[in-house]
Amino acid sequence: MFQINENYLQLNESYLFSTIAKRVENFSASHPGADVIRLGIGDVTLPLSPAVIRAMHSAVDEMGKKETFRGYGPEQGYSFLREKIAEIDFRQRGVAISPDEIFVGDGSKSDTGNIVDILGEDNVVAITDPVYPVYLDSNIMRLGKSPQIVLLPCSEENGFLPEIPSQCTDIIYLCYPNNPTGTVMNRHQLKQWVDYALEYKSLILFDAAYEAFIRDNDVPRSIYEIEGAKECAIEFRSFSKNAGFTGLRCSYTVVPKALKARSVEGDEISVHGLWNRRQSTKFNGTPYIVQKASEAVYSSEGQQEVRDMVAYYMQNAEIIREGLTEKGWTFFGGKNSPYIWLKCPDDMDSWRFFDRLLEECHIVGTPGVGFGSQGEGYFRLTAFNSHEKTAEAVERMKRWA
Amino acid sequence: MFQINENYLQLNESYLFSTIAKRVENFSASHPGADVIRLGIGDVTLPLSPAVIRAMHSAVDEMGKKETFRGYGPEQGYSFLREKIAEIDFRQRGVAISPDEIFVGDGSKSDTGNIVDILGEDNVVAITDPVYPVYLDSNIMRLGKSPQIVLLPCSEENGFLPEIPSQCTDIIYLCYPNNPTGTVMNRHQLKQWVDYALEYKSLILFDAAYEAFIRDNDVPRSIYEIEGAKECAIEFRSFSKNAGFTGLRCSYTVVPKALKARSVEGDEISVHGLWNRRQSTKFNGTPYIVQKASEAVYSSEGQQEVRDMVAYYMQNAEIIREGLTEKGWTFFGGKNSPYIWLKCPDDMDSWRFFDRLLEECHIVGTPGVGFGSQGEGYFRLTAFNSHEKTAEAVERMKRWA
Repeated sequence: MFQINENYLQLNESYLFSTIAKRVENFSASHPGADVIRLGIGDVTLPLSPAVIRAMHSAVDEMGKKETFRGYGPEQGYSFLREKIAEIDFRQRGVAISPDEIFVGDGSKSDTGNIVDILGEDNVVAITDPVYPVYLDSNIMRLGKSPQIVLLPCSEENGFLPEIPSQCTDIIYLCYPNNPTGTVMNRHQLKQWVDYALEYKSLILFDAAYEAFIRDNDVPRSIYEIEGAKECAIEFRSFSKNAGFTGLRCSYTVVPKALKARSVEGDEISVHGLWNRRQSTKFNGTPYIVQKASEAVYSSEGQQEVRDMVAYYMQNAEIIREGLTEKGWTFFGGKNSPYIWLKCPDDMDSWRFFDRLLEECHIVGTPGVGFGSQGEGYFRLTAFNSHEKTAEAVERMKRWA
Repeated sequence: MFQINENYLQLNESYLFSTIAKRVENFSASHPGADVIRLGIGDVTLPLSPAVIRAMHSAVDEMGKKETFRGYGPEQGYSFLREKIAEIDFRQRGVAISPDEIFVGDGSKSDTGNIVDILGEDNVVAITDPVYPVYLDSNIMRLGKSPQIVLLPCSEENGFLPEIPSQCTDIIYLCYPNNPTGTVMNRHQLKQWVDYALEYKSLILFDAAYEAFIRDNDVPRSIYEIEGAKECAIEFRSFSKNAGFTGLRCSYTVVPKALKARSVEGDEISVHGLWNRRQSTKFNGTPYIVQKASEAVYSSEGQQEVRDMVAYYMQNAEIIREGLTEKGWTFFGGKNSPYIWLKCPDDMDSWRFFDRLLEECHIVGTPGVGFGSQGEGYFRLTAFNSHEKTAEAVERMKRWA
């Protein structure tokens, strides 16, 4: 009789955003006229930019002609894209990452979820609480609800920045600008983690999906701006939030060649080689047309369009920040991040606030507790809706008794 | 100190097709004028069909307008596509599969590689030899080179059809029409496997990536044509070979709701629920424009275009079959499959034949031994090149002393 991976039975029944979608669906069914405004899921609303659209039409035409048709591409991504990334996202910012240290993927959810494949089962894994659920769930799928998974509380007291553990931790997930709290780590703070990882030979899994929203110069956009990070960190990047690729699916993972592990027998192992083997075996590359779209993001026109999109969303963040300040509610984030982490008023718990906000203001947000127990009593709002809807949502909240 | 998944160290150094690519690259570098004909990797050469191209242009336009832009889609795929699949690939062939039993993916390599995520580590896993390397490698990544992985020899003696094991086997990988041998299983033969799986409560992972090439009515196109298969089988399908989507990336996996497992504690578990959880957590859906392209494959125009493409490749298979027959070489397959499994002449081993064919005829094929030890002395040729190149390759082989 075949057996299943029993660790799955220890997962919560349903993925957070599916649960929310269902609740909203039920609400809309029973309130057919309601104009529900979504400030919940981190999905973008602006269309793809003109440079991206042009690049895709052109790539589609190539795929329709025998002379320019492209079949299987390299599992790691096309050089034309990896070279642009290395140049613009790294070299121009003073960081030396070579194109073959970059693996193009189909989304950071896949990349951060699949990375556990190459890691051992005896690692102590540190995950912040609250956290993007994928880090935790992908580890429970591998290890079960094990004491090896250590939660690092992020609360108002520590400014939502986890404290450096006193004992050895093998794998550390960090996401900054943070999802869900919208907080950032400055250079000095991130350096402490890199120093810790170098000392304990830990691996930092650094999710920089929101780097495009950073405004402060003191906040590093890549962990590789910190000396020594290439020996201890993998970085995940996404085109979802800067270029609006949530429905187009493109991401990349940087695995520096300087990053080495030791086998149980004491041999030095290239982590780059492991990830390359994983991706070559279980992935067949991101679609050519999507990689051409991503390349267009790096054209001078594309870069300007991305800046404009990010600025648009950051104006929404400002609208929310101003509204909440006026309302007198406590919140964090929204300065270098599209996320605002609201403390639920009147000591409401997260789901109670979710239901009341939906019923009374017809606004959807994300209950903080969905990101971990430390998120209880908090609520995530996002800046990804339109100016009009965001302003309207803020007005509704202001009017709310 | 962080540890890696040590099972990776038990894998062969390099993925088969990467090794071949490197050898060909070296050959081309030292023979700059050589007109190398590729009958090796299973990549298509015909461009995407007009219906598909039109659908993509239209979808790209949608993505460029605020009103029709699509962000995150359902991880399981859009209903518009899942409904077409259920109707045309199944219901019209007399098989009842509901749209929500279909999970749209980004390629069968990902799907067949990732399926091990939801399976237990104590299963006895049967894999044919020779085999598509992904099944074996993804299991070694999970279990190491374990005695739990049982190879079922497929040789000339048994017509490249594995014998039903006498003992209990928990997971069974079957790929028919077969990659690499090009052989098929008729209804009666496949029924024996389904009956076996039902008796032992085994799970069959049925890879039907090449079903579009089936000509004989006696060969099932889906395992679900066999009674009882919904209680014991997952089926993988791909758009790569029928519609030429190797560079576009779309596939689907059927996990029937009737497929149940038992937990160690004896509870009945829905395998559909497990795969849904895996995909919701570690995958964010296939790009909208790619799903629109796939939908176009099911239009009446798209269906005709796919039939024409398949017919084109099958003419190549016929050209190869005729040439090899004339040459007096022994081969299998190529009738319901784009693959021809050639017995290397003069008792050459697979890599020796690979090198000689490359050096003397400038033809690239795939060494049979790359698919497993039982493939030693065999060689895979594919029908995916153009008529002209295929005919030219056959002429070169015929002239070869």
